[in-house]
Amino acid sequence: MNPNTTHAIEVLKADSSKISSVDFENLVFGNIFTDHMLSCDFRNGAWEKPIIKPYEPMLLDPSAKVFHYGQAIFEGMKAYKDDNDEVWLFRPEQNLERFNKSAVRLAMPEVPDDLFLEGMKQLIDLERDWVKKGKGNTLYIRPFMIAIGTGVVAAPSTQYRFMIILSPAKSYYSGEVKVIIAEHFSRAANGGIGAAKAAGNYSAQFYPTKLANEKGFQQIIWTDDATHTKLEEAGTMNVFFRINDTLYTAPTSERILDGVTRKSLIQLARSLDIKVEERSVLVTELVDAQKDGSLKEVFGAGTAAVVNPIVGFSYADMYYELPKLENSFAAMLKEKLTDIQYKIDSDPFGWTVKV
Amino acid sequence: MNPNTTHAIEVLKADSSKISSVDFENLVFGNIFTDHMLSCDFRNGAWEKPIIKPYEPMLLDPSAKVFHYGQAIFEGMKAYKDDNDEVWLFRPEQNLERFNKSAVRLAMPEVPDDLFLEGMKQLIDLERDWVKKGKGNTLYIRPFMIAIGTGVVAAPSTQYRFMIILSPAKSYYSGEVKVIIAEHFSRAANGGIGAAKAAGNYSAQFYPTKLANEKGFQQIIWTDDATHTKLEEAGTMNVFFRINDTLYTAPTSERILDGVTRKSLIQLARSLDIKVEERSVLVTELVDAQKDGSLKEVFGAGTAAVVNPIVGFSYADMYYELPKLENSFAAMLKEKLTDIQYKIDSDPFGWTVKV
Ligand SMILES: Cc1ncc(COP(=O)(O)O)c(C=O)c1O
Ligand SMILES: Cc1ncc(COP(=O)(O)O)c(C=O)c1O
Repeated sequence: MNPNTTHAIEVLKADSSKISSVDFENLVFGNIFTDHMLSCDFRNGAWEKPIIKPYEPMLLDPSAKVFHYGQAIFEGMKAYKDDNDEVWLFRPEQNLERFNKSAVRLAMPEVPDDLFLEGMKQLIDLERDWVKKGKGNTLYIRPFMIAIGTGVVAAPSTQYRFMIILSPAKSYYSGEVKVIIAEHFSRAANGGIGAAKAAGNYSAQFYPTKLANEKGFQQIIWTDDATHTKLEEAGTMNVFFRINDTLYTAPTSERILDGVTRKSLIQLARSLDIKVEERSVLVTELVDAQKDGSLKEVFGAGTAAVVNPIVGFSYADMYYELPKLENSFAAMLKEKLTDIQYKIDSDPFGWTVKV
Repeated sequence: MNPNTTHAIEVLKADSSKISSVDFENLVFGNIFTDHMLSCDFRNGAWEKPIIKPYEPMLLDPSAKVFHYGQAIFEGMKAYKDDNDEVWLFRPEQNLERFNKSAVRLAMPEVPDDLFLEGMKQLIDLERDWVKKGKGNTLYIRPFMIAIGTGVVAAPSTQYRFMIILSPAKSYYSGEVKVIIAEHFSRAANGGIGAAKAAGNYSAQFYPTKLANEKGFQQIIWTDDATHTKLEEAGTMNVFFRINDTLYTAPTSERILDGVTRKSLIQLARSLDIKVEERSVLVTELVDAQKDGSLKEVFGAGTAAVVNPIVGFSYADMYYELPKLENSFAAMLKEKLTDIQYKIDSDPFGWTVKV
């Protein structure tokens, strides 16, 4: 953990709120932002005074390093409102820790704990009305950091901006999700930045995903880039495979994001006496298990979608369908996890944090 | 090649020039920009009217996709002034082609040929006085494109900005360059974006390079990420190895940038009856060749530094020094190439293009 900042947060309130113009029943994910944002610059080796101010565009030099060398990292989290109008975060210290790991890997300064955690709470507190009650309603939280120092020379910036913006959201995915298993393209290298939540990792996936979309698939399950034999993760989700009654998921590595949903589901499943193995699942294993009927479920796990059941996968131009289950682990785990997040159920793990 | 734009370029001139405040003898690379820049937005599936206008900061929304998902690509080129005050570009169509390859790989729109080439010429024409005569003096040209569409959902943007900014420059590197051969970290994956000039590729290198710097090395020679046995390229340079009198350089691949300097040096060397082999060189080969004295030279090749001799390399915690040569290929090729670029020598290859 990092030392705290010495600066209190300055607050500059918006003159009016745009909340009344928002149709909360028909939100497009990540499209609308609340009235305020948090912003804090790093210069001369130190974090300056953070400010919460009206959400607005910012002025950047065309030579700002973020445009040329991709020094940009982010986190994705959510706030939930319970029936008593209290607002809750889910394991925010995990996101803080991962954010600072990403920062180190991209040669960016780490963010002080209180700037991230207390800054976030203070900002959300101001935007309480944007968090709606009822399961499925959330406030998506996007902390991010970009290099704002100028100069077209390929070296780390000396100036950075940390920001938090907030977007009211419903659930992320709609419709059935079919995936393609990657045979050629990859999202991460051994010794690369796959384990960091770095902006550059996502742009690398857009073109292969577009090709997949054109074939009628929504997502790609990435494989290890050296052999394309091990199943790793999806674009913004870790992946679980249920073979008979055991859940398998790839171990975290340099190539895989250490998902908060993934680790929470593992703990939750084990507490429910479901066997979970963290080990590489081979593509051939998956295909064999589909063929002999032992493959019961495949699902993605991530903050945006929580749990996302996959209805089928394509590999080597063959399409493999998954069975429709009555008692799916995916549905059950999603129910249990969201019950904890919305304070419907008790939280034996101590995961929820009050704003 | 792409169709041309239908729009003429609008020109908005700066009220005054800052050129008189610039110390052209003591330039820091990529730090100072000329009076004007070119900017052109892509919206609703088409490129809008390009404009050449005063160099200035731009307003971007905090949720602009470039900040979150790293859709950002660039090129690096130079303009040279000959003794008759004519300004020349070097193989600009190569950079255009590579730029559009990068665009495709990052799911960004391709830039029309004339926007890139004619736009660049028109901008440089306006800034002629910034290109100084004399070998080593250049105007560094930075075309780039960023995703300016908003929204924190991991999908390609629908809006982009293409820009060209110009920076007067002297030579890029100073002092002796010692390199470390990568044993753990990597810059590119099989099936990844290493062959694209994507912003994200550079931020991935900063942390390992910082570690190398701390040990007294300026650069890293990257190896293939799967086995770390094949020598690939440096941070912003392709790499050549001279063993006896043959030059070796890694073949271009998905992991390696197809450098304009690299391909020009290969052609130039062959025209001078120097044998060049494009094949993977193994780390073990390099170490063996250093030990038996057949390794004569290692040098980087790229637009910024042209040719950059490497004085020694480190591998597995051993440091290997390179001999000091009288008649180095590096020095000779650099001389010949820059003579062509500055129109001191004839250009039998048709590489130079008048502005
Ligand atoms: C590449 C990738 N994998 C997995 C995840 C899931 O992580 P988390 O559960 O922390 O949201 C994410 C983030 O959403 C991601 O971007
Ligand atoms: C990764 C990388 N390799 C090689 C090069 C050399 O390419 P070029 O000779 O076209 O400048 C560059 C660009 O400068 C680069 O960024």
